[in-house]
Amino acid sequence: MSTQRRMRWGLGLAGIGVLALLGYACAGGAGGGADVGAVARARGLSEQDVLAAVKTYQPTGARDEYLMFASGGHSGQAMVIGIPSMRLLKVIGVFTPEPWQGYGFGARETQDILDSGDMAGHQLRWGDSHHPALSETNGDYDGQFLFINDKANPRIAVIDLRDFETKQIVTDPNMGTNHGGTFVTPNTEYIIEGAQYSVPLWQEYADVDRYQDVYRGLVTLWKFDRDAGRIDRERSFSIELPPYWHDLSDAGKGPSQGWMFLNSFNTEMATGGIEDGNPPFEAGASANDMDYLHIINWERAAEVAADPANVRTARGMRVIPLETAVEQNLVFFTPEPKSPHGVDVTPDGGRMVVSGKLDQHVTIYSWDKIQAAIQAGSFSGTDPYGVPIIGFEDAMSAQLEVGLGPLHTQFDDRGNAYTSLFLEPSVVKWQLDPPQVLEKIPVHYNVGHLAMPEGDTRSPDGKYLVSMNKWAIDRFNEVGPLVPQNFQLIDVEASPMQLLYDMPIGIGEPHYAQIIKADKLNPFEVYPEIGWNPGTMSADPDATKTGEERVERQGNTVHVYMTAVRSHFNPEYIRARQGDEVVIHITNVEQTHDATHGFGISKYNINLSLEPGESQEVRFTADEPGVFPFYCTEFCSALHLEMAGYLLVEPR
Amino acid sequence: MSTQRRMRWGLGLAGIGVLALLGYACAGGAGGGADVGAVARARGLSEQDVLAAVKTYQPTGARDEYLMFASGGHSGQAMVIGIPSMRLLKVIGVFTPEPWQGYGFGARETQDILDSGDMAGHQLRWGDSHHPALSETNGDYDGQFLFINDKANPRIAVIDLRDFETKQIVTDPNMGTNHGGTFVTPNTEYIIEGAQYSVPLWQEYADVDRYQDVYRGLVTLWKFDRDAGRIDRERSFSIELPPYWHDLSDAGKGPSQGWMFLNSFNTEMATGGIEDGNPPFEAGASANDMDYLHIINWERAAEVAADPANVRTARGMRVIPLETAVEQNLVFFTPEPKSPHGVDVTPDGGRMVVSGKLDQHVTIYSWDKIQAAIQAGSFSGTDPYGVPIIGFEDAMSAQLEVGLGPLHTQFDDRGNAYTSLFLEPSVVKWQLDPPQVLEKIPVHYNVGHLAMPEGDTRSPDGKYLVSMNKWAIDRFNEVGPLVPQNFQLIDVEASPMQLLYDMPIGIGEPHYAQIIKADKLNPFEVYPEIGWNPGTMSADPDATKTGEERVERQGNTVHVYMTAVRSHFNPEYIRARQGDEVVIHITNVEQTHDATHGFGISKYNINLSLEPGESQEVRFTADEPGVFPFYCTEFCSALHLEMAGYLLVEPR
Repeated sequence: MSTQRRMRWGLGLAGIGVLALLGYACAGGAGGGADVGAVARARGLSEQDVLAAVKTYQPTGARDEYLMFASGGHSGQAMVIGIPSMRLLKVIGVFTPEPWQGYGFGARETQDILDSGDMAGHQLRWGDSHHPALSETNGDYDGQFLFINDKANPRIAVIDLRDFETKQIVTDPNMGTNHGGTFVTPNTEYIIEGAQYSVPLWQEYADVDRYQDVYRGLVTLWKFDRDAGRIDRERSFSIELPPYWHDLSDAGKGPSQGWMFLNSFNTEMATGGIEDGNPPFEAGASANDMDYLHIINWERAAEVAADPANVRTARGMRVIPLETAVEQNLVFFTPEPKSPHGVDVTPDGGRMVVSGKLDQHVTIYSWDKIQAAIQAGSFSGTDPYGVPIIGFEDAMSAQLEVGLGPLHTQFDDRGNAYTSLFLEPSVVKWQLDPPQVLEKIPVHYNVGHLAMPEGDTRSPDGKYLVSMNKWAIDRFNEVGPLVPQNFQLIDVEASPMQLLYDMPIGIGEPHYAQIIKADKLNPFEVYPEIGWNPGTMSADPDATKTGEERVERQGNTVHVYMTAVRSHFNPEYIRARQGDEVVIHITNVEQTHDATHGFGISKYNINLSLEPGESQEVRFTADEPGVFPFYCTEFCSALHLEMAGYLLVEPR
Repeated sequence: MSTQRRMRWGLGLAGIGVLALLGYACAGGAGGGADVGAVARARGLSEQDVLAAVKTYQPTGARDEYLMFASGGHSGQAMVIGIPSMRLLKVIGVFTPEPWQGYGFGARETQDILDSGDMAGHQLRWGDSHHPALSETNGDYDGQFLFINDKANPRIAVIDLRDFETKQIVTDPNMGTNHGGTFVTPNTEYIIEGAQYSVPLWQEYADVDRYQDVYRGLVTLWKFDRDAGRIDRERSFSIELPPYWHDLSDAGKGPSQGWMFLNSFNTEMATGGIEDGNPPFEAGASANDMDYLHIINWERAAEVAADPANVRTARGMRVIPLETAVEQNLVFFTPEPKSPHGVDVTPDGGRMVVSGKLDQHVTIYSWDKIQAAIQAGSFSGTDPYGVPIIGFEDAMSAQLEVGLGPLHTQFDDRGNAYTSLFLEPSVVKWQLDPPQVLEKIPVHYNVGHLAMPEGDTRSPDGKYLVSMNKWAIDRFNEVGPLVPQNFQLIDVEASPMQLLYDMPIGIGEPHYAQIIKADKLNPFEVYPEIGWNPGTMSADPDATKTGEERVERQGNTVHVYMTAVRSHFNPEYIRARQGDEVVIHITNVEQTHDATHGFGISKYNINLSLEPGESQEVRFTADEPGVFPFYCTEFCSALHLEMAGYLLVEPR
């Protein structure tokens, strides 16, 4: 640091004169006499703004301390955002094809993943991704995997954080939609998926007049095989639940390890029908003052499910019938205030915080009390389906009035909790012991979920909070009637809490996020070996190697063994006769960081993204005669435009 | 402003003591004693960084001065980015379906747009969007429309900036790929689209051994009907060009109005074939020292094309044959140095700046000299296809050595030009009169295009420059082998130029951008009337109105007339028999800013985004029996989760 700079930063006093005080006291002078104060005034920034700017600014080359994994909402994707800079580092293709990543545009591995997510005989090419969950070891994020659900089509995806790519989509044929996923158990033994709107379980079809008899709720525990990096469908199972609508869930930890918690609403079992003069769902499903917090012993359920006598099969999935679940003491209820959204287990695992959107309180349940009631068999009754109900007072340890529309709670490392208040809208900070409101900060506007660094693990970091606001309205430049959401970054170490940054989300409607310390991740910079198959995450012995490029015809199939390197493909011609099958086995033989090559074929709906070392296969029918250029779709070099060739399809 | 704040900002001196000088001289004290200097030091920020932070920070609710419209590269989309905050405000679905926007997931209008872009019998659901162009009036952006090309599949899209939605995709069946588009003429009479890799024009198929005879280049002038907000295919035409590969283009203005300029490379007509021992395209196509700048009289070409005797029809498009173009004095060439990328017309329209990627100069052509040579019929010869060539010295006014890999030039309002240098990589600032290098700033890394506010119009704003860097490598946190691009914002009013901000682009590989003064845009906040049809941009008399909701069966077709309003759909049930056609006519009857409702149906690949007032139609076959929840996919209200219903498909 130069002497001049040191002086200006107040590390030395010599030489600072009146001019310095007149607006030049801080920084500035970066050639041309610009100074921070004058620029800030000219831009209308307040002191608070300047402080926020400095807290969030990331100079060139600097790393963010945290990475936030946010859902992409009905974009169907997942997003990676740096914190505190709030820069969008990547949109990961998950449920929706993404040509930039070569996800679903011919690369066979990715086609297979997307195809495996088809349901009800339909090709599904979007999702409503809601709740991402990072894999955990001992109740802390381990940085290895990310899971995310699709609410619209009940599915779960697995993303490998070595290459930030989707590796698997599993479908849950017994659900209509899901919502209470994904949440992981403390060692990622299982990935929790709770259904949302109930549908018939044991039979294909029933009209709604048989709602209470035939429609059912469901929770599925997907077994995760960490070594394989995949969900194991065979070892997964579901538990039948009453036909309530189910909302968010969370896994217990510490003393509550082995248990999970699931919110419900529409325990009224309202069936709507405004068109017939009935109360619409919004009225019927929120008539009662209380719904049921579901308390489920997943560890014991896994043991129960292991005995074939205890399960029935529905659409190929093992399901523990509700009757068995009750008999085996797997499921208990306790009342929870009105239309709850989040159920959030405290870092020590001892309490469950429930937010009822139509109640002004957070309700804090005591695991000790719940356990005592279960042990004692002390229940206030059962629901219509025989599930034992623990009395509200026997489970609840405190209620704290926090404000209007409480929705979701996160935790810091200083014994505090933070709850989003949808209707105010603001975020309330309160302490757990004893429960007491500390302060509120307004947010803009209609906050849904919150995320804090490691804020739902055993060891939260505190420091920041991201408020995921559903409406932005007047926060940004107008971009038409479809308005971005607004993620607001808040400094929770400041007192009072300080709003630092407004980040518009112009791609999807993200719902939920988890924030991990960035240094827990260790992704590949390039694939470890040339010829890498991202499906198997290993080098593919059959990948095309440099020097072995060739074209082989086998009957009506043309096999093209191709390499890509700056700045050419080899071969540069693919000749086929109309109707031929063309199979291209292509390897990017580079090992230079960032030396990605694309491979796009004109008018054939094909585009691959080949990261350094990656091998892919693409297969298509050359059904249309003509001359179709192919080219590298990543700007790889000065001669990138010359990295091209021709697919020649001779008419029959 | 409080007295305390005024003091701290140096507007008053009283009360600033030694403590203030010791790091507290600037701002801070925002409750808890945090101060800018201490925070900056703790975060490792330099003075330059703090200045950059203050120049780019956008406090909550503040508007950006400029909006940048960037291509989405092989994401197929367009992006809207605020400047100077570098916040991503919106990703507009263009060539790739986008479920968040309800683009291509059942909404009939958007299905039709995407379907109209299909080519060669294939459903195309991605694009390689390269060059966005804002509509112009008198050579200045007017903020009404945005155009963008798809390089992979030669197509042009039209986006209406009232609602930031794609309204039209037109296909160019005579091109293999395009690249020299989109660029508009000064009053948006035409949208220019130049081809890239030549393909056979007048016949369907020819192997590459007939390259020089049968393959052809092409430029298309798409006629824009501003009142209709659509390209008029019937009034559009193409001009046949020699089988060179064509690169970027630009429209003349001022004295050069009525003309356009198009770069070429591979005038060697190399045909590659590395697999047969030939030089690959990268070598063969860059063997010569000079390629040809194409100088085309589009105004006269439009007159020529109006006479049916002058055009031939190829695949339904009117094409002026090359021979006619030469006879009618529509096309001239002049040599341009090696593998040019950008050809950029100066704000006064008097000069054309060409950057040859493999040459260290920018070459400045004089419109006066070019015109004089054409008038005098003074040519150095013709190319093999008979196109007259103006001698290099007869067209060029100056060459300026700027550095390695010059690629693209933008202009400010002070007589300066800025050229990206791919190989250095840096941006060079130089003055036009006389041509002289002023300064360089390094960028990180491998800069492709540049964008400056209104930097290619008749009245550039200067102020900022965005360097669109292809490689980011070490600039951001690692997110796997596929690395984001890096957009760097540079202050060009500072001297020397100052790097302000690094923005990762984690969605696509953007190529090109235009930056418009934000106050030129006047988008809808909500659609002007309830029942708005975004296809016709008018209220649809047949849109479902409140009180007229109903279900009508007509044979095997079930018509559902539905409204959406916080927090219910009406009706809440859709009953069909397996095999029925279901047509839903749905209106979001809200007029509140940001009150968007989604409409997603489980497992049927359907999702709409209904902005306030919007009406859409969705049509599908209820081919799969069962119970399928539908629900609002935008978090619209506290009872958003209750905004749901059921599609009941009774088995046959």
